[in-house]
Amino acid sequence: MDEQTALGLIGDRLPAAGDDCAVVDGQVITTDMLHERTDFPEGTTRYTAGWRAVGASLSDVAAMGAEATAAVAVYAAPAFDATELAAFLDGATAVCDAVGAEYVGGDLDGHDEFTVATTALGETDAPVRRSGADPGDALCVTGTLGRTGAAMRLFERGDVDGANELFRFTPRVAAGRALAPHASAMLDSSDGLARSVHQLVEASDCGTALTEPLPIDERVDEVATDETDRRELGVFFGEDFELVCTVPETELAAARAATPCPLHRVGTVTESGVTLDGTVLPDRGYSH
Amino acid sequence: MDEQTALGLIGDRLPAAGDDCAVVDGQVITTDMLHERTDFPEGTTRYTAGWRAVGASLSDVAAMGAEATAAVAVYAAPAFDATELAAFLDGATAVCDAVGAEYVGGDLDGHDEFTVATTALGETDAPVRRSGADPGDALCVTGTLGRTGAAMRLFERGDVDGANELFRFTPRVAAGRALAPHASAMLDSSDGLARSVHQLVEASDCGTALTEPLPIDERVDEVATDETDRRELGVFFGEDFELVCTVPETELAAARAATPCPLHRVGTVTESGVTLDGTVLPDRGYSH
Repeated sequence: MDEQTALGLIGDRLPAAGDDCAVVDGQVITTDMLHERTDFPEGTTRYTAGWRAVGASLSDVAAMGAEATAAVAVYAAPAFDATELAAFLDGATAVCDAVGAEYVGGDLDGHDEFTVATTALGETDAPVRRSGADPGDALCVTGTLGRTGAAMRLFERGDVDGANELFRFTPRVAAGRALAPHASAMLDSSDGLARSVHQLVEASDCGTALTEPLPIDERVDEVATDETDRRELGVFFGEDFELVCTVPETELAAARAATPCPLHRVGTVTESGVTLDGTVLPDRGYSH
Repeated sequence: MDEQTALGLIGDRLPAAGDDCAVVDGQVITTDMLHERTDFPEGTTRYTAGWRAVGASLSDVAAMGAEATAAVAVYAAPAFDATELAAFLDGATAVCDAVGAEYVGGDLDGHDEFTVATTALGETDAPVRRSGADPGDALCVTGTLGRTGAAMRLFERGDVDGANELFRFTPRVAAGRALAPHASAMLDSSDGLARSVHQLVEASDCGTALTEPLPIDERVDEVATDETDRRELGVFFGEDFELVCTVPETELAAARAATPCPLHRVGTVTESGVTLDGTVLPDRGYSH
């Protein structure tokens, strides 16, 4: 059973699951696990790891249109080095500070591989789910795409400082709050734009037609070998933690004015299918 | 740096950390990680693993005297088997049901070793911390000690059904709620009675004198090889998830009457030192 199928099984059994966060009494909660082999390339500092791991969960809170309130993490490693642990806590605290949440600690675990499990909490009276998109709505994305793909290339090249900087994204909590009154559906782009859009249209039982140009980050242009590679990094690679949302046409100007970061329209919600400039956009991307 | 020192470092940097749960605006939150090599002996069913992993976090909520509201988990494994995953979800849901909380799902992660990261939430206006014990208070413990130590012996002997049953404890949420108005300090016995008592007196800047007999579970008697072994399993082994608390003498009868499980007085809070029948009780136990 692959991960997507397994997630479907969880969603079938637990009504509160199946979105970026579970919702319980006006509170949203999300949990995630990252580990060295798949998520922290060689050269990732512990400060960046703390920032990014906690940030990934805060991004899920943002995707519900919720205020972020608190986060915790389990720091699991073969040994506990005081400098590394302090750097991790500093990174985790800094990303929480950046979005107005409180980092309140967590636990330690002896583990063969450096692994981090994070949980973030938020509050909202009106969570924005993945399932509310209607044909005709504008499909939008915040910020730029492909930062993490570009960072991976920088790690490979040995530009560790540049890569770490790209890895420390600011979760879109402020944008999520601003979009919440306007968006009909929302999720984050952690699985890449392509897969995220497929998840959105599946939850909303609709389709979408995307059109170029997509807001691919200029740092992707600096590292991409050709146009195919550029699209791979920008559209499929994922782990960018931008917000993907749908907004009724009549709300689009207000949504854009309220959002404290660029909000790019990348397409329109349709009855069925997912296309980019008329060609089928496959459901392919990062599998966590 | 050992785990206790590392936890101290976290506590020094994060004021909300250092108790069974962090407290944020009337809400308590706790997170934990368990994994196959150290926490799930061969023979542990996935149902038991889900129950126990989520139960361990619910026990931390209980130790704050809070109501348990919700729990999430990351299920990390080398492969996702539908039957195993469903059994895990059933166990996680059942332990939440047993204490009135909602199991709302979580995430999946591909991981070399079967690993579970759990987070539980609770609510209370008056959290009971580890730091409120005063000399003269009665030192008490709920239920019986040594169940997990006994379970480990049953796993070794191949009595898998018996061991799994002992592994599925009911978190003491109801007892924690009942004790909250009476207890001056509380924590759970996840590190074993001896280490838990040391943690309590360190946080409260006091000591305690314990006296035999301690409420060691009769199933310990069935598996222990001699009196030394019995004490090892009952006092030091840990992972029992009972509540250890201190209660002013004047409150003890009311606390006992309110608590829906046995509440054993095992000693008295003193100015300093930790003794059992006059002999020093070492700070030794389960290190997570």
